[in-house]
Amino acid sequence: MTDNAVVSRTPLTVLGTGDMGTALARAWLAAGHPVTVWNRTASRAEPLAAEGATVARTAAQAVAANRLVVVCLLDDASVGEALDGAALAGRDLVNLTTGTPGEGRSRAAWAEARGARFLDGGIMAVPPMIGAPESGGYVFYSGSPELFEEHRDTLAVPAGTRYVGADPGFAALHDVALLSAMSGMFAGVTHAFALIRPEDIAPKDFAPLLVDWLTAMAPAVHQTADQLQSGDYTRNVVSNLAMQVAGNATLLRTAGEQRVSPDLLTPYMALMERRLAQGRGDEDGTGIIELLDLRAGAS
Amino acid sequence: MTDNAVVSRTPLTVLGTGDMGTALARAWLAAGHPVTVWNRTASRAEPLAAEGATVARTAAQAVAANRLVVVCLLDDASVGEALDGAALAGRDLVNLTTGTPGEGRSRAAWAEARGARFLDGGIMAVPPMIGAPESGGYVFYSGSPELFEEHRDTLAVPAGTRYVGADPGFAALHDVALLSAMSGMFAGVTHAFALIRPEDIAPKDFAPLLVDWLTAMAPAVHQTADQLQSGDYTRNVVSNLAMQVAGNATLLRTAGEQRVSPDLLTPYMALMERRLAQGRGDEDGTGIIELLDLRAGAS
Repeated sequence: MTDNAVVSRTPLTVLGTGDMGTALARAWLAAGHPVTVWNRTASRAEPLAAEGATVARTAAQAVAANRLVVVCLLDDASVGEALDGAALAGRDLVNLTTGTPGEGRSRAAWAEARGARFLDGGIMAVPPMIGAPESGGYVFYSGSPELFEEHRDTLAVPAGTRYVGADPGFAALHDVALLSAMSGMFAGVTHAFALIRPEDIAPKDFAPLLVDWLTAMAPAVHQTADQLQSGDYTRNVVSNLAMQVAGNATLLRTAGEQRVSPDLLTPYMALMERRLAQGRGDEDGTGIIELLDLRAGAS
Repeated sequence: MTDNAVVSRTPLTVLGTGDMGTALARAWLAAGHPVTVWNRTASRAEPLAAEGATVARTAAQAVAANRLVVVCLLDDASVGEALDGAALAGRDLVNLTTGTPGEGRSRAAWAEARGARFLDGGIMAVPPMIGAPESGGYVFYSGSPELFEEHRDTLAVPAGTRYVGADPGFAALHDVALLSAMSGMFAGVTHAFALIRPEDIAPKDFAPLLVDWLTAMAPAVHQTADQLQSGDYTRNVVSNLAMQVAGNATLLRTAGEQRVSPDLLTPYMALMERRLAQGRGDEDGTGIIELLDLRAGAS
């Protein structure tokens, strides 16, 4: 530890050296941070030793080694198991383990009861995007604002950072919301490719048209947000729900002609029809958001 | 007709002056094309007379007025009714009426049997985008390549043009495929907004994150096309189906916590699980396209 350049970087611990944990540890090592790692299956941590990491024998020892502790394990239960018995008082715990908002909140309460500050994170990247700023990958953070401010430069090393609030559930909520929207987009893309598959249309000719179209239509999200904030779902509507439902018939008949299952289209269409039946044909699709709400008293 | 600038533009007929037909006729009038219009409810064609259009009393008279005839009616059945009895021999029929690929093909055969050349179109724009090149709106065309080549400058007046093949069903197929993909994306967006709705998160703060994410993820379509063309669905996989299915559990548990119906997510997830059960966990989602194929002998 005689190298000033190394000493000046915040030392930290990474618990969990799966693909993501390894990518994270490697990014910090490359930036000159002293890194202590631990993994339940010790052999998976060994490659990082060759890159300069200190491999701890137990999670408790890894936690004892540094104030800043980054956790990237399989799931929330694994976090509880790994940290059981570790001395967390005075530690800054950054939990990048995939989980739900509820798990983020209960894990925050659990950590705070043990004297640790807590930040939850949701990683919007796959391992190859870590340590590669040009990839556009980033991490949602929520929880202790003091922890985030104090370590924001260190946290920014492996990927961009987006702090979304003191509620420790918000990082996971943003993460899951974006992944859910992406899942819908990919479902739609799957249906689109299924439609052209029986025909003499090269997927590579079709793909740029599809990418351009989705990219051009994505900003409609701003209109939805504007309507939600105003409470007026008829505001600036160009193609209203009545017109959209009429158009759906062409989509379904085309699926039938092409012998493609409509299963990926019908749930959204059914909700559009339900909203239309409520007399909301002059809205666009924003009102359908209310139909998904299962809370007592919701529409 | 003494104005040379006007005489030099191809004269044409527009059948149907609903919102879209009116926008189209208006764009051609503004560009100096002599336009004859007809609408079943004549009063809806009158406003165009004030802008220089000739209003025909019958569809047959409108067809007789010009060789180039653009049709933009409610549906394919309306096209058959409107053109019943019109003399189509030698006419260039451009059908911009919304329909299925099968309707495009049978209408093409019908028109050709009556001595007309035929081009089908699928409009990727709403009426306000017509005559506004900066809007990015365009029209898919398929059918007679000779008709398209001869009239491509005229057809390019109201919106951009994309000729996608001699098969008269391809314009509608491309149109419907893109709209179907968009429907999936909007379903995902609806679920995402439903997740954040119970929380103290401003839709306007969330919207840019969602737009950026969808825009960043849309190019995954190129990977799907590449896999389809190669037939190797494990090629360049970053997050494989087994990992995606594991991640879906977090999406569903989050929906449960937030009291949001999972109905818009589950059909795609069910297909992912079905493909995984076929031993395809090392693929990404491309193989799911095959599961939608209802043709005899398909997987």
